[in-house]
Amino acid sequence: MAELSRRSGVPVATIKYYLREGLLPPGAATAATRAAYNDGHVRRLRLIRALVEIGELPIAAVKYILSRVDDETVSLHDMFGSVQYALGPDTPPADDAARGEVDELIETLGWRITPRSPARGLLAASISAMRAAGVPDGPGLRTYAEALRALADQEVASVASAAARSRVEAAEAAVAGMVLHERMLIALRRLAQEDASGHRYRAEP
Amino acid sequence: MAELSRRSGVPVATIKYYLREGLLPPGAATAATRAAYNDGHVRRLRLIRALVEIGELPIAAVKYILSRVDDETVSLHDMFGSVQYALGPDTPPADDAARGEVDELIETLGWRITPRSPARGLLAASISAMRAAGVPDGPGLRTYAEALRALADQEVASVASAAARSRVEAAEAAVAGMVLHERMLIALRRLAQEDASGHRYRAEP
Repeated sequence: MAELSRRSGVPVATIKYYLREGLLPPGAATAATRAAYNDGHVRRLRLIRALVEIGELPIAAVKYILSRVDDETVSLHDMFGSVQYALGPDTPPADDAARGEVDELIETLGWRITPRSPARGLLAASISAMRAAGVPDGPGLRTYAEALRALADQEVASVASAAARSRVEAAEAAVAGMVLHERMLIALRRLAQEDASGHRYRAEP
Repeated sequence: MAELSRRSGVPVATIKYYLREGLLPPGAATAATRAAYNDGHVRRLRLIRALVEIGELPIAAVKYILSRVDDETVSLHDMFGSVQYALGPDTPPADDAARGEVDELIETLGWRITPRSPARGLLAASISAMRAAGVPDGPGLRTYAEALRALADQEVASVASAAARSRVEAAEAAVAGMVLHERMLIALRRLAQEDASGHRYRAEP
């Protein structure tokens, strides 16, 4: 376990906690107090850390996601869907006008989205709250949607190229990619905002 | 208070909690058990709900953000920065290679970003974790960065147009816009991914 901790960069106490919680499968026992861990354990530990530290997901959500990663009867598309549910937030309230706007946008774009997709609710709630708070729309929903759709295509394609590996490796990379790309996007957006805000509001030195 | 609850859609018990926590300023006392609330209270309640329910921010972070909104000595640009700090996550660990990559990207793009910006750390940590998890880069950092910078410009401009209102209203709209646009972007991205994943992985009906 000391070796696993060194290779993954995760403290021994944390590894023990993940083992107890069932997030990490036990190693193969080699003696009463020793177990052998393999590359799969190292990969799994890195994935758990990414979901917890960077994705800020609660342990229960990580556990659910990993159960879907390990279930070979689940297609990659359905696994993507499960991850979206687990990412939250729990669908916040939205008014009917905003829900209608979201349905209309999806129809106009021709996107195929399940009616129960939690992202529909999150989008409608964001729009509701923006209207209530008097936030201007900015570039407009459709501009955002089209920019993001082009990026999503490239991402899904790059995950597909990783699918040449074993199913579990492809599934792990897909989950990590989904959560980490989202954080990367948020970070880049905040940086872009800092620069844009500086150009507009900050006096030149 | 019943009237305030009706107008804002926030339950009375929740309003009392926000008053106790100092998130909402007290109304003007009109009798021993009555107080008058104004449009400012309604706006403030909607903002708190948006930050808590949709932004999923802890109460302490909301309190800090509101103190910056109300501090007239803070410029809008510095307030944006404060909100970024409060949005988290706490800077997760990142390796030096990823930090270097982020610094280089920012320099190449010519963005003006403070060295202590928390988004730098989040971006570096996301990149570190993506590399460790074997996640393909997708379209590449620069493609994302440029797409987001164009959107940020339009958003900051639309907040600036709102700045014709009072400072506190402009600040409130800026905070709400920053948090809600981010959630809107995440929701749209997840929808875009569902559609992109469906096109690639799901059999035609």
